[in-house]
Formats: sequence, C-alpha cells, structure tokens
Amino acid sequence: MLGLMQNWPLTVDKILDHAKAWHGDREVVSRSVEGPIVRTTYAQIHERAKRVSNALKALGVGPGDRVATLAWNTGRHVEAWYGIMGMGAVCHTLNPRLFAEQLCYIVNHAEDKVLLTDLTFLPVLLENRAKMPTVKHVVVLTDADGMKGVNFPGALCYETLVEQASADCEWGGFDENTAAGLCYTSGTTGNPKGVLYSHRSNFLHTIITMGRDVMDLSATETVLPVVPMFHANAWGLALSCPAAGAKLVMPGAKLDGASVHELIESEGVTFSAAVPTVWQMLLTHLRETNGKLTTLKRVVIGGSAVPEAIVRGFRDEYGVDVTHAWGMTELSPLGTIAAPTAAIAAMDDEAQLRSKLKQGRPPLGIEMKLVNDAEERLPHDGTTFGKLKVKGPFVVGEYFKSEGGQILDEDGFFDTGDVATIDDQGFMQITDRAKDVIKSGGEWISSIEIENIAMGHPKAANAAVIGALHPKWDERPVLLVKLREGVEATKDEFLAFLEGKIAKWWTPDDVVFVDDIPLGATGKIDKKLIRERMKDYVLPTTKAKESA
Amino acid sequence: MLGLMQNWPLTVDKILDHAKAWHGDREVVSRSVEGPIVRTTYAQIHERAKRVSNALKALGVGPGDRVATLAWNTGRHVEAWYGIMGMGAVCHTLNPRLFAEQLCYIVNHAEDKVLLTDLTFLPVLLENRAKMPTVKHVVVLTDADGMKGVNFPGALCYETLVEQASADCEWGGFDENTAAGLCYTSGTTGNPKGVLYSHRSNFLHTIITMGRDVMDLSATETVLPVVPMFHANAWGLALSCPAAGAKLVMPGAKLDGASVHELIESEGVTFSAAVPTVWQMLLTHLRETNGKLTTLKRVVIGGSAVPEAIVRGFRDEYGVDVTHAWGMTELSPLGTIAAPTAAIAAMDDEAQLRSKLKQGRPPLGIEMKLVNDAEERLPHDGTTFGKLKVKGPFVVGEYFKSEGGQILDEDGFFDTGDVATIDDQGFMQITDRAKDVIKSGGEWISSIEIENIAMGHPKAANAAVIGALHPKWDERPVLLVKLREGVEATKDEFLAFLEGKIAKWWTPDDVVFVDDIPLGATGKIDKKLIRERMKDYVLPTTKAKESA
Repeated sequence: MLGLMQNWPLTVDKILDHAKAWHGDREVVSRSVEGPIVRTTYAQIHERAKRVSNALKALGVGPGDRVATLAWNTGRHVEAWYGIMGMGAVCHTLNPRLFAEQLCYIVNHAEDKVLLTDLTFLPVLLENRAKMPTVKHVVVLTDADGMKGVNFPGALCYETLVEQASADCEWGGFDENTAAGLCYTSGTTGNPKGVLYSHRSNFLHTIITMGRDVMDLSATETVLPVVPMFHANAWGLALSCPAAGAKLVMPGAKLDGASVHELIESEGVTFSAAVPTVWQMLLTHLRETNGKLTTLKRVVIGGSAVPEAIVRGFRDEYGVDVTHAWGMTELSPLGTIAAPTAAIAAMDDEAQLRSKLKQGRPPLGIEMKLVNDAEERLPHDGTTFGKLKVKGPFVVGEYFKSEGGQILDEDGFFDTGDVATIDDQGFMQITDRAKDVIKSGGEWISSIEIENIAMGHPKAANAAVIGALHPKWDERPVLLVKLREGVEATKDEFLAFLEGKIAKWWTPDDVVFVDDIPLGATGKIDKKLIRERMKDYVLPTTKAKESA
Repeated sequence: MLGLMQNWPLTVDKILDHAKAWHGDREVVSRSVEGPIVRTTYAQIHERAKRVSNALKALGVGPGDRVATLAWNTGRHVEAWYGIMGMGAVCHTLNPRLFAEQLCYIVNHAEDKVLLTDLTFLPVLLENRAKMPTVKHVVVLTDADGMKGVNFPGALCYETLVEQASADCEWGGFDENTAAGLCYTSGTTGNPKGVLYSHRSNFLHTIITMGRDVMDLSATETVLPVVPMFHANAWGLALSCPAAGAKLVMPGAKLDGASVHELIESEGVTFSAAVPTVWQMLLTHLRETNGKLTTLKRVVIGGSAVPEAIVRGFRDEYGVDVTHAWGMTELSPLGTIAAPTAAIAAMDDEAQLRSKLKQGRPPLGIEMKLVNDAEERLPHDGTTFGKLKVKGPFVVGEYFKSEGGQILDEDGFFDTGDVATIDDQGFMQITDRAKDVIKSGGEWISSIEIENIAMGHPKAANAAVIGALHPKWDERPVLLVKLREGVEATKDEFLAFLEGKIAKWWTPDDVVFVDDIPLGATGKIDKKLIRERMKDYVLPTTKAKESA
C-alpha cells in the first residue's frame, strides 16, 4: 500500500523558487571578475536565471544537453546553474586549474554543447577552441563593456543574451532523477571520470547539509563560499544558501588573504568554507596586517586535512570555530563533518581539539563502513585502519558513460579510495589514500599523518611523505620537506621533531629537502608526480645495506 | 537523461539504522506508564524494534496492514513505531482523548489488525472491544508484572512477545512511497479523516525539520517531546531525534507541571516541544515552587497560538527562548516556524517578540499561498487576510480511502482551513479558522486575535470569541470569558481591556461569563460545542433594536 501524500518531485528549481518567495530581498554579493562589487538578490537571480534558460534554448540547448561553466564563484555563475538545471539541462562545472589537455578531454567526453566562461579563461579556451568540436557556442560571463577587449571568434555576451531573453519559462516538471549536474574527478590515475548528479541527489544533499550538525545554515547567516563551485559544487552552498535564505557573498577570482578578509569585513560574513590553503593565507594576512575578524563566527574546512595550527590560530587569536569536513566529488560532496557529539562537547578545549582534527561523522543519508581487504567490517576503535566505503542517495552509483564499469560492492557501497580509522564517537579520520599508504612489513603506515606533523615544524613550508622500496620491509617512509624561504635545517632536526609524535617504526628512513612540493588541480599534494620525480631515489638504509 | 547517483530509497528504518550505527549509546529515557524511569539506548531500541517486527509477523501482520498504537510517549512506543514501519506495515496512532465512539469509528475505518495499548487505556478498550471486529490482537505495552492486574480477554504482553521474537529481521527494501503511518484528523466537521504518510514523506519531514531554522536538532541536544506521538506525530521528534543522535526524554502519561519540570531537570533537557497548555502548567508550577530551569534553552510551541504571557514568562523569568510553530496532521505536521530572518534578528527584543507571536515562515519543502475566495493571491503585507493553502512532499494528497474526495486545488495546493496573514518578513499569522472567522458587514474579524488578547486579562482563565447573528451586520463578535477561581469582573472591565488593542469595529457586542470553555481532543477550544451551547443566545445589540 502506498502513502497518500503529495507527489512533489525534488527538483532544484524549487530551491530558487523558495528563495524568491520567502527571501526575495536577501542579497547575493559578488566580487565580479571585472573588478567591482556587484549586488543582486535571490528574486533578481531567479528572474535572470529564467532568462538564462530561454537564452540557452535559443542557442539550441535541450533537456539532457550538457552546458559547461568555466567560472569563478559569482552571482552570474549561480544564475547560470539554476538556469541550466531548471530547464532540465545538465550543468557541467569545469575546473580551470586542470591542464588544457585534461580540460579538452573532459569537454569532449561530456559533449558540452555550450560553454559559459569568465573573461579569465578566454586565453586557454582560444588556444584550445579547435579541440572542442562539440561546443557550439562560447558565452562570456560579462556585459557589453566587458566584451570590448574580447577577441574570440563567435563569443557571445552573457548580459546581452540575458537581456534579450524572456523571463517567462517553465522550470521542473520532470522526474526528480533527471540529471542536473556533471563534475569530473581530477583523476590521479587514468582519465577523469564524470559524476552525474540528479535533481534528487542535489536536493537531498541540500536539505541534509543545512542541518545544525552539518553546515548549520540559517536565514540569519552571511555565507562566503570560497570553495569554488567548480570544485565539489562549492560544498553545495550555492544550493543550500538560497534554500536557507542566507546572504551569499561570492569572492570571484580573488582568493588571497587580503581580498577574502576585505569581503568578510565589508559584508559581515558569519560563516565561510574553504580548503586549508585559503585559511592559511588569510591567517598570514591577518597576522601581517594586525587584521581582525569582527563578524566571522565559524569556518568549515575541507578538501584536505586541517593542520592543527589553523584550528588553534582561528580559535585562540580570532575566536572563530573551525569545523573539519570531508567529502568527494563522488559524494556531492559531503561525507562527514566534525560536529561534536554530546560526549565531545562535554570535553575540555584541548580534548575537543583532538576531535576537530578528525574528519568527523556522517549525517543521516551517508552510510559508512570501514573494511579490510577481505571486506570484513573493522572496529570503530580509533586505531584500526581500513578502506573507507560509503553509500547513500547523493553518492555516485556509476560514472558517466559507465567509465570504470561497476564501482559499487555487493552491498552497494562505493570505495572512496581513502584509508581511515573511526573512533568510539563515530569520528572518522583519513589516514591516507589507499594508493599512498606505505606498506611496511605487512603493516600500514599513514603518509598523511607523518606529513601533517612534519608541516607543523616551524621551518617547514610544506611536506610530503612517500613510500620508498626497501628490500626487507617492502616499503619505508621518506619525508620530503620544502623549507620556508631563507631558513636552513638538518635531517635530524626533523626526525627529532617527529619523535614521540608517531610510532617509532613509522619514523622515516630519510629526510629529503626539496625546492617544490607539487600540488594537483584541487590543491592537494600530487604524490603521483612526486613518486615520478623520486623514481631513481634509493633509501640510505638500503644503500648502507648494499655497501655493507 | 537520468542522473547516476545511487538508488537509496528514503525509508524510515534507515533513520534508526543510522542512530544505532553512529549514536548507539545515546540514551532514550522514559517515564514509564507503570511509574519508574526506564533507560534504554538507540542500539537497544533498534534491536527490540526488530523483535517487534517479528512478533507482529507472528501475529499475522503483513506489509500494508494497519497496526494501531494507543499509547503515551515512551521508548516502547518508539520501538513499536519503527518495528511496524520497518517491516512495511502502517503505524496508526490513535488519540486517546477522542470519544470512544470516534475511536471505534477510526479503528474500524482503518481496519486495524493489531492494537498496541498502554495500561491506561484498557478500560475504554474493554468496554468497546466488541465494536472493533477487525482488531485480531490487543497487545499491552507492559511486562509480565504489569500484566498481573490486567483483566482483558486475549490481551498479549508486549515484553513477552519482544523477548520471544528473533531480532533477525530485514527492514525496508520497498518503494519509498510505501505507506508508513496513519493519523486521523480530529474532524470538527464530519467524520475523522485519515492521513496516510509514506516513508518518503516521513523521511523528508525528518531531514527538513532537523535544520537550524526549524527544530535545530543536534547530537548535543537532550529533547523532551511533550507533544504526543498520537498528536501530529510528536512533531516528528521520534524520527528526527534518532536521526540527529539527540538524547530523547519521554514523559509517559504525566504532563503536569511538576512531572515535566522534574524530568527536565533530572535528565538535563535542553529543548522541548508542546502545546501552550503544557507550558502554562509548567510556568504556574515553577512560580508556585520557585523552581528553576537550569538546562532548558528553548521550547517550540505549536498546536494553538502562543499567548504573549508565555513567551515573556519563559524569556524574562527563565531565560528560555520560545519558538512558535504551526502545523497540522495533514502536514506531517510542520508548516511554518517563527525562526527569525536576518532583519528580525537585528530588531530589539520587543520588536522580535511581535514576530515570535506569529506562526512564522515555511522551510524549503512547504509551498504556501494566501488567496481570496476567487483564488487570487493576496499580498504579504501583514494585514490582508486570506485562505492559507500549502503544497509539498509531506502535505496530504488525498485522505485515506478517498474520504472527502479531491482535496487539492488546480495547482495542487491543500486548503488548510485556516485564515491568515503573511507579513513582509514572510511570517504567517493564523487569524482564524475559516469556519470561525466572523463575517461582519462584508469584512472579516478574527475571533482568535480577540480571544488571545482577552486571555491576557489578569482575571481571565480562558476566553473564546464566536460570531452571533446580527440583523444588520450578519455577525458580530461575542466574547465568552471563564474567570479565574474566586475573582469577579464586569463586562466593561474586559471591553476596556480590549480598547486600543483591536480595531474599534472589532469590539465584541457582548461579554458573557461562563463556567467552562470546552476544549476538543487536541486541546484547542471547541467552538462547535460553544456555538451549540450558545444557539439560543441573542445579542444585546439585537435585543436593544428589537425592543426599540
């Protein structure tokens, strides 16, 4: 027997309808790519997004067609998202940090029909235009003035299209499982793979992440998503902020400490989300300028593990609470967040800080398990490592065009490729990527744990740990350190610094000082490249043996 | 084109699975119907709910069958809910405050197969047992000890059934639109009508109400749902608390001020939800005993309009924040909640209080409109009255067995039967029930607004306003007042009290002192009964005219 409640498909156009109806005057403020601060509202974004839908229809876009965006976080990008998704087309966010070759691969694989781009990215597009044959139109997210300097054959002006299009357009009305968004994983191995979000998955991710123990969104908040819309959907904030009626502040192309600080103070930002690098830049800027944070209450940090120094810096110097979160493109992106349990909330500050450094617990809607190679569940004891697998309504089922084939296990779980522990409070901690974990004498060593500690050394600008081949132990850890400018250090200084902070047998067999720790497109350490660079490296412990 | 995210049906068994996996040790504390405080956990409730499913199967219950509960808020009742719903049966909550005749009608209409009852209700069941032929088994929510005093032919002992059943039971695995719950509206006109909730509607209501601007639920909260599970699903708290990992404190049968206060203090309750009457009893108790509220931070009040004196009392005397909410059985139940917008949050306390007395704004998931008799949308200006209509995934589509026929308008909206205004902050305020609104000279007068003000008179214990026939104006308001014990008052005292607080033409034509203001099964003023009692009443203004 079926229930008799209303049939109300979960489509994302309803989110902007809601924002218009109940928070129509709430502002969306952007640092435009052209420079000036631009102010709009949810009501205006709603109207303009409808025009975007009609403009795209006029360009030949129909339901299911992919429309790419290569754009910073701005009000225009938000309009474009809703305009594309509302009409049943698929919004394909492109990551401008990818190499041109990868970008072309992705555009072709997705068969993007129209590409909306910020002025910033015209040079790379122009150079590669011929390699993107499926793209019928390139639309530049600027106005007629902005188009004056544009020398791009056939490029269309976004503002002109919006102006000329009618605002009368029916949204939704299709199955909630209709595709809404497409985002490719950065793909450290093999080709990038596309995650095809549905309206339903986006809608559920939105309402679940609004919760107090997740993003804790409210109409009273002013939210600055520094995390880009092209990187894991800006943690869903372009959907959840209008859903909550929160004021949205968009940083455009300027993510440096000074620019972020200026926006926070001038717009009264209360909550923000970004990767650790951004927060490190902000803290450095604040310290250098003796800056204050007069409105910011909390930040969510994800994308990579949060260094303790950032949590302490925000808390002790600026009274800002840091919440650690973990997600992936394949999870829409939220998987876990370190919102305290009652037991943690009752602990003292230092004990709570230990939990804050973990990636946290899943909300309802994310099932999560830790398993060994035999797929047996492992205990939640905070020390046992295992493969981390997840399941849920906003977790990938298969990649676009079935790349990679069947990706779920027998119970429907997706393997995150992460290795983690889960403690007695249900707090998950990523200990490594499965492919980066160092297998030494049949046991696992977390490269991330060692490098996080090493990064805390005052002389370290950055650090990475990889496994180097060892005749007896299979692999042994090697610590690579990029020193801060102008300082010198010895291997022993770093080894001494690690002493007592990690198990003795985890101690790296060597410390190598390097000029560069390479980062990938999403700002994470590119271990694949490091391993390539180190392919001829031989451990001193091995050499010692060899010469013995 | 469809998205490629996982197929993960929104079924409520997943809520308890989540609570078990991530908050398994979190307590559920009940004041048992037998007397003692009983402590259990989400993990234990999960296991016992599985046993309930198997016990019900053994009693012949299958998917789609209705299983009734006639029970107070206790851990056992929570187990029963999940046990019934998890296996795909329908949990039919019966309101024990209904007259026996209505109860029998509802049980027969629902064709309940098994009835789970607290000891409290055995007398009324025994008396009416023969009138409930569809009920094959009556299960008493007690243990073998509790059964000793039971003299009810064929009655089964809940604890014995749970003990004997296996905990091995597969839950879910069916369509998320499968019926999960059934609750009848109290039906002031015509027969009670059943609202048949689905797993999907319950799940969506759960995750939406967890949000900061709704119930604001967190794993760190300790929640006391005084609002009964049989009345509008305890505002969904039996689902949303396990979803959040909040500690659940269940008051059993004792809802008086002293008992509620004792539980709040002994269990460290931080958040509670109830109808105004309960809070009035608590405030009275606190004042009489010089009691304190050392842990309670906020209460949500719904079910009927919140008197200003309660909001002020909690705020000024006890530092507890009151949030007003509005809902209906047909809405699962939440429709709106008075969570401040940014503009309201910036106002001073007194201005905020004006908003707190309104029913608030809808969350994403509730579409809401205000229309006139011609179905035209009315402005959100805070003064224009209109019919309040709603739409959404947890709003009724049709009543069980199609009672009342087609109940949605052309655009799919359900008429709430309420008359309301909506202000520029999107805050809705119920001004009346459509059938209670007083139509005077072609204009509408809100009976509720007048009675709420009159109840603020220090001599009033309760007050009601109805329309009395008037030869010239069609209807004119009459104020009925029940005085506090031992006090005396004049009509003019009450009319003077209203002066300046309502429009002059709203002033009642008469004040009638009565011994009793009758309440219906859900604690609201029973205007139907009042109108019956007053059917021979003639307005003095009319009499004056007649004798003139």
